[in-house]
Amino acid sequence: MYLSKLFIPTTKDVPAEAKIKSHQLMLRTGMIKQSSAGIYSWLPMGFKIMKKIEQIVREEQNLVGAQEMLMPTIQSSEIWKESGRYEDYGEEMLRIKDRQGREMLYGPTNEELVTDIFRSSIKSYKSLPQILYHIQWKFRDEIRPRFGVMRCREFYMKDAYSFDLNDDEAKKSYNKMFYSYIRTFNRLGLKAIPMAAETGPIGGDLSHEFIILADTGESQIYADKRIFEINLDNYDYSDNSLKKMRNDFSLMYAATDEKFNSNEFEKKVKKENQIKTKGIEVGHIFYFGDKYSKPLNGLIDTQDGKKVAVKMGSYGIGVSRLVGATIEANFNNNVMKWPKSISPFDVVIIPSISKNNNENIQKAEKIYKDLKKQNIDALLDDVDENMSNKFKKHDLIGIPYQIILGSKSVNDKIEFKELNYKSELLSLEDIKSKLKNK
Amino acid sequence: MYLSKLFIPTTKDVPAEAKIKSHQLMLRTGMIKQSSAGIYSWLPMGFKIMKKIEQIVREEQNLVGAQEMLMPTIQSSEIWKESGRYEDYGEEMLRIKDRQGREMLYGPTNEELVTDIFRSSIKSYKSLPQILYHIQWKFRDEIRPRFGVMRCREFYMKDAYSFDLNDDEAKKSYNKMFYSYIRTFNRLGLKAIPMAAETGPIGGDLSHEFIILADTGESQIYADKRIFEINLDNYDYSDNSLKKMRNDFSLMYAATDEKFNSNEFEKKVKKENQIKTKGIEVGHIFYFGDKYSKPLNGLIDTQDGKKVAVKMGSYGIGVSRLVGATIEANFNNNVMKWPKSISPFDVVIIPSISKNNNENIQKAEKIYKDLKKQNIDALLDDVDENMSNKFKKHDLIGIPYQIILGSKSVNDKIEFKELNYKSELLSLEDIKSKLKNK
Repeated sequence: MYLSKLFIPTTKDVPAEAKIKSHQLMLRTGMIKQSSAGIYSWLPMGFKIMKKIEQIVREEQNLVGAQEMLMPTIQSSEIWKESGRYEDYGEEMLRIKDRQGREMLYGPTNEELVTDIFRSSIKSYKSLPQILYHIQWKFRDEIRPRFGVMRCREFYMKDAYSFDLNDDEAKKSYNKMFYSYIRTFNRLGLKAIPMAAETGPIGGDLSHEFIILADTGESQIYADKRIFEINLDNYDYSDNSLKKMRNDFSLMYAATDEKFNSNEFEKKVKKENQIKTKGIEVGHIFYFGDKYSKPLNGLIDTQDGKKVAVKMGSYGIGVSRLVGATIEANFNNNVMKWPKSISPFDVVIIPSISKNNNENIQKAEKIYKDLKKQNIDALLDDVDENMSNKFKKHDLIGIPYQIILGSKSVNDKIEFKELNYKSELLSLEDIKSKLKNK
Repeated sequence: MYLSKLFIPTTKDVPAEAKIKSHQLMLRTGMIKQSSAGIYSWLPMGFKIMKKIEQIVREEQNLVGAQEMLMPTIQSSEIWKESGRYEDYGEEMLRIKDRQGREMLYGPTNEELVTDIFRSSIKSYKSLPQILYHIQWKFRDEIRPRFGVMRCREFYMKDAYSFDLNDDEAKKSYNKMFYSYIRTFNRLGLKAIPMAAETGPIGGDLSHEFIILADTGESQIYADKRIFEINLDNYDYSDNSLKKMRNDFSLMYAATDEKFNSNEFEKKVKKENQIKTKGIEVGHIFYFGDKYSKPLNGLIDTQDGKKVAVKMGSYGIGVSRLVGATIEANFNNNVMKWPKSISPFDVVIIPSISKNNNENIQKAEKIYKDLKKQNIDALLDDVDENMSNKFKKHDLIGIPYQIILGSKSVNDKIEFKELNYKSELLSLEDIKSKLKNK
């Protein structure tokens, strides 16, 4: 892609209400545009990053045997009345009357709807376990939407639902999702800490939040930093291995300020291992047994001929929120550096362009074509502006690798730079193999 | 994927209101489940097919230089008041009041919102042309939703918007989309005819519908069958080539009953080339100049310092509708056969299973693993039922190729069948190379 063709309306004027750095950066680099309070359009670069995050989430869901489907955004109020949440949910639920006067709503979550699908499809213990998930837009009518995509009204979320015969089996599903989440955040280049959590309005008796470290986060975090040394490769997808995995995580101290106990922290975690920082919630998992299956009659025939309510859990990841959270975790000293796995492009080619000399731009186009053949996704900055402005701009756009065609590149040696590191002179072959190995 | 693990609630009880064959089949094979009138959940197999269609649509949009982005589902009424369509649109628009009492709506289309994005981002002729598209859920509150996903209320649509300096340039964008559409439907295995059309509520003075042939379609079609002999490989993406392409299509007679003229048809089309059948609209493209940019102030600085309203077109493909339309076009004599490009699996392995003999299922598992290594996406039917029932079931599920492990498969020769053809005995190597070449 040539930068001059890319629809990327960068701007220097950030509105005053953009108070946190991810909101500011996303507006400045043309990733999003607000259309109404708490509702955004995703412009091409922001969209591309969100899609890459979505794909990693999807792959890790599939690896634990979750099956993708898609529930609609508009739901009938009927099933919410069955579960008892229609009145409870309050004003955050966007309630709608259709032309026939039927009470509908824009789904803020899907426990009721997925239970309805399950109860009409699955009748026997033989068909369990099942994990279904979808990645769909949700709406929560926040009274004060703010912080850009971090606390908006229309947001993109992966939510999975597990169905099991009994508590023991259900905990196996829970552990699978726990593992899937840790793997997902790792692949996104984020340091995520699972924390035992309150279950809140979803209900149930077992719950974890996944919190990533970011100085600007909303929650205060206290943890044992050895939690990041747990090697995921030591586990496999077998039930026993995943049980051990969750136990290994549980042994490491981690708490938000609500649960924090200073004495316990000092006793359990050596000074040099103590982390005290802030964090952002990016995932939340719940086990709530028959909280929804019971009122909604999601019954299963057991092997000995009884009928029992199926045991359920739900598992959410905020996909659109993760775009903002990744910026909060990675944008420092005026330099944004996207993790390689979700960077909008693999590399940006930055030629120095002047009226009298088009050698650099020609060289850039040649390199661009060459990279394309190798399936390396490059952005070519063909905009006519000085190099100092270009570098400032690319510090914000945040593509982690740069090929710079200016005064330093001579003959067959080309200036190559990783953001936050010094540049080096390399042959194109070496650059290609570096980019491919990244 | 093992069939016993797949969430595919097949059913023999099809509700009476399912009147057309795609609606019936999608319910019978567990592709969708209705959640309220005209609103469906997409279960794993239906979802997978829709995603494959979406991906082909996306690839062909990208090939003509359209850039993907994503607008939200919920829009403010403000921009619709600016364009004058808020009152005009009538009861099909789902109108919503949020908790602050603001008038919102669930977008039935996006001309207003994309013009709003454009006007705040692009100011100069130098940044033109631009084509932006998104694939997003829409809502139209049909008074009588029916025919399953063919006329539902919440539906999935690709809509693109072009922005050009003047009519001549705009027609180049129009031709690009025209070509992209023909290519898209070809790749989906559908015979699509472009027809000059009325512009309806979108407005403008140039429009084509794309209609695929299906006996059960809603529109009567009269056409010259040589339209299917136009070879798309004879054109490239240059403006002149695409102009010729559109002209070549226009020379072929094609009309729906509204525009049909019997004398003209008989005069222009030889008897042996006449097609008289029914069809289903799957795409619609419009050129409407400054219909929206003028009231919404989407202005561009021209090269000679003037300001002109940008010239726009819009281009829709019904992605969820295409799932149903493909069934209408391909489900005949109780056999559904998915086009290879969008089949839910590349092949299904059907072993004959009996209590006393597990040789076939073991053989099936071995073949399954082997195919997986070659990236061939197989479904293994490990359900314990007789072969006759299995074949009936797979006639409906519609995977185009079958590997049958029953009495006919001996030693190294395996029974391989393409739906609607006779089976043959082949080595596994030959089967693999057949599947890879398909």
